[in-house]
Formats: sequence, structure tokens, C-alpha cells
Amino acid sequence: MAPAAKLSGFPEWLPADRIVEERVIDLLKHTFELNGFAAIHTRAVEPLSALAKDGEIDKEIFAVRRLHAEGDEKNPLGLHFDLTVPTARYVTENAGRLDFPFKRYQIQPVWRGERPQDGRYREFIQADIDVIGEDSLAEHFEVEIPLVIVQAFEALRSLGVPPVRILANNRKLLEGFARGIGLDDIAAVLRCIDKYDKVGPARVAELLAEEAGADAQQQRLCLALAAIEADTSAFADEVRALGVSDPLLDEGLDALARLLDSANRISPGSVVAQLKIARGLDYYTGTVYETQLVGHESIGSVASGGRYDALAKTDKRVYPGVGMSVGVSRLMSRLAGSEHRLLAATRSVPTAVLIAVTDEAHRVRADDVAYALRTRGIPADVAPQAAKFGKQIKYADRRGIPFVWFTDGETGHEVKDIRSGEQVGADPELWAPPAADLWPRVVGTAEGA
Amino acid sequence: MAPAAKLSGFPEWLPADRIVEERVIDLLKHTFELNGFAAIHTRAVEPLSALAKDGEIDKEIFAVRRLHAEGDEKNPLGLHFDLTVPTARYVTENAGRLDFPFKRYQIQPVWRGERPQDGRYREFIQADIDVIGEDSLAEHFEVEIPLVIVQAFEALRSLGVPPVRILANNRKLLEGFARGIGLDDIAAVLRCIDKYDKVGPARVAELLAEEAGADAQQQRLCLALAAIEADTSAFADEVRALGVSDPLLDEGLDALARLLDSANRISPGSVVAQLKIARGLDYYTGTVYETQLVGHESIGSVASGGRYDALAKTDKRVYPGVGMSVGVSRLMSRLAGSEHRLLAATRSVPTAVLIAVTDEAHRVRADDVAYALRTRGIPADVAPQAAKFGKQIKYADRRGIPFVWFTDGETGHEVKDIRSGEQVGADPELWAPPAADLWPRVVGTAEGA
Repeated sequence: MAPAAKLSGFPEWLPADRIVEERVIDLLKHTFELNGFAAIHTRAVEPLSALAKDGEIDKEIFAVRRLHAEGDEKNPLGLHFDLTVPTARYVTENAGRLDFPFKRYQIQPVWRGERPQDGRYREFIQADIDVIGEDSLAEHFEVEIPLVIVQAFEALRSLGVPPVRILANNRKLLEGFARGIGLDDIAAVLRCIDKYDKVGPARVAELLAEEAGADAQQQRLCLALAAIEADTSAFADEVRALGVSDPLLDEGLDALARLLDSANRISPGSVVAQLKIARGLDYYTGTVYETQLVGHESIGSVASGGRYDALAKTDKRVYPGVGMSVGVSRLMSRLAGSEHRLLAATRSVPTAVLIAVTDEAHRVRADDVAYALRTRGIPADVAPQAAKFGKQIKYADRRGIPFVWFTDGETGHEVKDIRSGEQVGADPELWAPPAADLWPRVVGTAEGA
Repeated sequence: MAPAAKLSGFPEWLPADRIVEERVIDLLKHTFELNGFAAIHTRAVEPLSALAKDGEIDKEIFAVRRLHAEGDEKNPLGLHFDLTVPTARYVTENAGRLDFPFKRYQIQPVWRGERPQDGRYREFIQADIDVIGEDSLAEHFEVEIPLVIVQAFEALRSLGVPPVRILANNRKLLEGFARGIGLDDIAAVLRCIDKYDKVGPARVAELLAEEAGADAQQQRLCLALAAIEADTSAFADEVRALGVSDPLLDEGLDALARLLDSANRISPGSVVAQLKIARGLDYYTGTVYETQLVGHESIGSVASGGRYDALAKTDKRVYPGVGMSVGVSRLMSRLAGSEHRLLAATRSVPTAVLIAVTDEAHRVRADDVAYALRTRGIPADVAPQAAKFGKQIKYADRRGIPFVWFTDGETGHEVKDIRSGEQVGADPELWAPPAADLWPRVVGTAEGA
């Protein structure tokens, strides 16, 4: 089964795969709430001005306007491209009514006008957690965020989702290093290093020369830095061995080392320092994170984020934050949809038992059985037609409904497990399916095993 | 607490009210799934051509286009204004991969460029259920749909939501009646009758003259019909007493009478015939429904829909459907947000217990307690700062967190119920809060009682 969408880049799932997606979302929500994050939901649109980067509106943005709006809108709108910018706006708008540090999660679609490709969509669901402080934000939150993401993916592993590896770096480290070797256009350096995996080191060296004015020695040092990767704080020694010195570099090195020590104390091997991680978005100012789905690295990061100190501010106050965003739709591109799917739902409907209808004149008998079962929390459906029983059983079978109920109002009730064929007497006020059959389950496929 | 939004018509809730909204959504989902409806999620955008009514694009639609898109888009898009049109498109696109009758539910935002007013928003969440058949759809589904909505609102009553009354009519009845009295412009007649509650009978009479060319006798008959309301199938006698005869009228009368008999057998008084109900959308062809929130009739219908025979079709097949849509945001305008709120969450965060931090050097001790509690499914958070205990307790109190945990690594652990002040020894591997405190609850307010 391929995704249903005919409009490229706007994935839609068939009902069985939507069950997979909802189960993934439920496990993320549960993990976030266990960790004290409160849910918010923001509107889909923001003023275009708020979606601008450095005053420049990115052409990936979808603009929104009322058809037949008279003249130009005073306040032109666009669809949000992430959930961080809307949260920053929500926080400043509601600052007097929120308690800080404000821990929130948010699971919604976002929109980007990118060219659709493997794992990249124009509409996709993100699941974000962020902690936002008022005036300041303690560094321990930069440890907490990736650890919550680690827990969330551990919860997903129970379904059959592959393990993940969180990759971390620190913008201060990159910025201090660039400054320490005499490069001033920090944004350009970050942009070049961010392309490391995409274009390879040789091309990054050329780009550093073209875009950041780096000479051969500066290029060599940047590439040496970008190649460093370690799962302990020992990475800092490798950086220091490059002989570059700058106070901001030291700050970044120390912060990243503390992150690795703390995270690996609680969850050994979960967070790795990888110094080529830069992140495209311009608002990060401290730790940045990406996440690899082990064995599926080619789809790109499945959970990314970082610390941003100046995204949310009013005239009087600043609201620094740190967060990560799980790419639910990108994850789904591997979990479901294709023949190489990793997960599948045990059936395509919630229904555990189909009540057969003997003849249309007595449909109410079946309705009453269904009503009694639902009252006791058992998902039940009534056959749409008083067809031959064989046809009604086929109706259940096609949807994966495990039980069919027969009632004739005279001799009573019987329920058949259509997998085993076993048929037994049953009372609508007492019968229940085995717990494993009550709701559809999500299970790993042979492909994913 | 007022809704947070500064952009008029785009409601956003503070975290405690989002808990209310999510609880409402969860109860709707649960009811829909107990009744065998499967979830789908469709993209936010549709081709503008698909959003057109009778070929004419409504000016309430929000158009969407990539900023800086080169030239005109080949396939201009708009935000969906309901969930029925996207579902019809989804069904025809996936017809070969769906099983019919297809029972689906869908809970998503929709967008309309209307002037915002009480209970009417530009972005709002709808919760839809529909049954869609292939080639035909049995009439019993027109009974099932309102009964599922009745069950859903019964589930919401457990939170403190007021009762509802479903109002039903039938387009065939209206159309047959109009034809029977010699009026040909059926769309105009429906449009006039639909305004009955808004402008009153005298003005409807004028409109019928102006827009449908009705003479005094025709106006009188239409108003007499529109005034009929009954909670049993006896309404049909009142209509017949008006002396109008038309085969389609008889068909509509019989269908509506059967709906009332069937619905009231299962849920007495839940569905009422009200012959002024016409519904604005043009795609309905059979039964139409509206729903009043008792005591809050002024916000308009909180759950509406109807039967549509020709909305979804391909070259070869037609997919008739029937459904209703719960206006979650409209409901929320009464349930939460204002000082007259009917419901409130017992706290603004999921957290049941806050782990106090004695000093920053030993934050890991608190982290470990939180980790142990979360592993056993208890939502726990760690204090953001090793402030004085009084300040940490105040931090919990402000958010409504009922318990604060103290640990010193030496003498062990104690947990305090900050409502009673009671403090007892506790083991992170064993302690649990009372079930009622584990997660935030949603409760009725004095205002709503």
C-alpha cells in the first residue's frame, strides 16, 4: 500500500496506517506528559512578518489570503513552517498568564514549500517539546530535552521502531572556533559545515573558500573540526589538539562535554558529539541536536532542535528556550505505507466484534447487542446488510475484525472467533474478547524484524 | 482567562484549557471508535476547484500559494472549509483500497474567512463522523449517525457538558413541499427557510416573495411548515393537514418519521423533527441535522450534518454518504476560556509530583527519583532551581501539582501532599499518588452546575 496522496508532498494514510501514526503520536504524548510537559495547540497561520528570517521571507513559506479579499490584507498571513516560531509568539502573547519555566509539547502539521522527496513533505506532522524560561534558562534543560526524546524513542521501540542515536553540537563551539581561526562571517561558515553530509568534505572546503573567504589552512581546520565525533566528553581534547583558542569556543566545549557526561550517566551511548552538526535554522544559539534512525540514516534527522536565546522577546523581557522536534511524518515514511514498512496494525477498524443481522426486520436485535457491548467498552459494529452469514463473515474478515456475533432472539446468542472457527454461546452483558483483541494492535513486520 | 489569540477568529487556549479540549476530543474519539468508526487524517489543502460550490468559489475560502511561486500555480490550492469535501475526495482517490460502507471519523481544524463572532471562528476544530457507501447506502445509517452523536454528548455529560437536542429534517420533505405548492426554485426556498431563526417568520415571508417568487398563499404554507416541531412521528400528520401533495414530500415524510421512531426507541427524546432546519451547504440530499446545546442555543448548532448522495463520484461510481460534524471549538467557547466557563482542569500541567532539589550539586538525586516514578507511569517533574523549599512548594502550588517530593540522599525520601500539609516517608520504587491525582481531571464549575 502506497500513501494515498495524489498531491505530491501531502501524505495521507489509509485507515490501518493512520492507526500506526496515532499509536506513535500517543506514545510520544504519554512520554512528554510523564515528563511534565503540558500540551498546547496553536493556530496554523502566523503573520508573514513573524515567519521572516532576518527580515527576509523565505520562499518556502505558503502564504494564505482570503479569496476575494478586498485590496491588500493589512496583516498578510502564512502557514507556520515549524512549531517553535508559533510557540515563541504564544509565549510572549501570554507571558503574564503562563508559569515559567514553561514546559510545553505540541503535535501539529507544519507546511514548507520544498521540493518533495524521500522523507520530505510539504505538509508534515511534528511533535515538539520545548522548555522556555523567563529572562534565563538553566543549562540542565539542555540535558533534559534529548533525554526525554531518548525515552520517547524507547517507548516507540516497544512497537518495533529501530533505535536512535542523538547527535549533538554547540553553536558557541562552532562560532568560537570560526572566530578563533580568523573567519568573521559565522553564518556562512555554519551554512557550509551544515552541508557536510550532503556534498562531502571536498565541496565544503570549496564552499568555505567561496562563501566565507576561508584560505587553505582555515579550510583544513574547519574540516578537521567537522570530522570529530565521540560518545564521551573526550571529543574536547581532540578539538583542543587543533590548537585553536577562543573564549566562546571554550564555553561551547565545556557545555557540550557536560551534556555528554550527564546524558550518558542516565542513558549510556544515547547522545554522541558530532561536530559537523550545525542545523539550518538561524535562531539557535547553544546546543543543537539531530537524531539518526539507526539503519535509516538516509532519510535525515528524525528529531532535531537546539537552544535559542533570543527567539521570543518583548520590549521588556527575553524568553530563552531549548527544544527538539520529532518528525512524525518522516518517521512514518519508514514505519508504514510502503512494502518495506516496519509496522502494521492488526486490523483496519477499531471494531472487535461484528454483530450479524439475520433479517432486516430484526436489525434492532443486533443494534441492542452492539449497544450492550459498547456500554461495557467493547468496540462493536452491526453488519450493514442482512446478507448470507458467509458474506457477513467475509465483511468482518476483510477488515480484520476477529469476532462475529449471531443472535436470533429465540435460542439466544453465539459468538464466533473467525480465525479459529470456534463458536460458543455468549451473553451481551458478560462476554468480552481477550484483552489483546479488544483494540487494534500495532506490531513489527517481518521486514522490520 | 480569555482565549489567548490576538488574531481575531483564531482561538488558542492556555494549557489548562487545552487539557479540557483534549479531554473533550478523547471522549469523542472513544465514542466514535466504540461504534466502529476508523480515524483518517487528510491534508489541510484541496485544489480550489474542489472547494467550489456549483462551480462558484466561495469568498470565505482561504487561498494558499507558495510565496515567490513563479507565475500562476497550475493547481491553485485552498484550505478546506469542512471535513466532508476532503473525505469525499479521499474516498474517490482510494476507492479501490477501502472497504465499503466506509465508516470514518476525522478530527481536524478547518478554515473559513467569516467575520468572527460568538462561537464562530476563522480556524476551528471539527470532529466528523461519516458513513460512505459504494453505489448505495442503506437508510439505517441515517439513524445510526445521530445516535452516535447522542452517545458522544452523553459521554461529555460525565464532564459537566449540558445535554443536547438533535433537530432533524429531510431535504426531500422540503423540496417535495416546495414543488407541491408550485415553487420551482428549490435552492432559493431552502435558503429562505434556513434564515428562519436568524431573521424571523415575517422577514422569511418577504424573502420567499423576493427570492423564490412566492405569493401570499405559498408564503403562508412555507411558514406553517417551518413552524412544525415534534418529538414523535406525529409531525407527519401536521404536515399532511396542510393539504399539500407531492410524491417526494411523502418520501421525505416517511423517512423522517422512521428516523424519529428508530432513534427514540433507543434514546427517547434525543431526536426532534424541526421542519425549519434546512442547512446552508448545498450538497445535502436527504436527512439534515442540527444540534442545540440546551441553555446555550444562541451559539448555534454544535453538531450538524446530513445525507449527501452525489458529493463523491468518479466516472463509474457514486459514493453516497451521511455524517455529522461536532463543532469542538464552538463547544469550547462555552466550556472554557471565559469567566462563565462550564469546565475546568484540576491543574495546568500533567505533573502529579514535583521532586524538590536540595542543592544543584545533587540535582541527579532528584533526577533519579523522577526517573523511577516515570518508569512506573507517574508523571513527575524536577524543580527548575535549588531554591528555598518554600519557593519550590510555591512552584508546585501555582501549577496545581498536588505532591512535592524531598530527598537528601541520606535519611531517605519524604513526600508532602501540599493541600493537606501531610508529609510521609516514601520509596520511589513503591509510592503512587491516589488514582484521582495521577492525571489532571476535568470537572464542572459552579457556573456550569
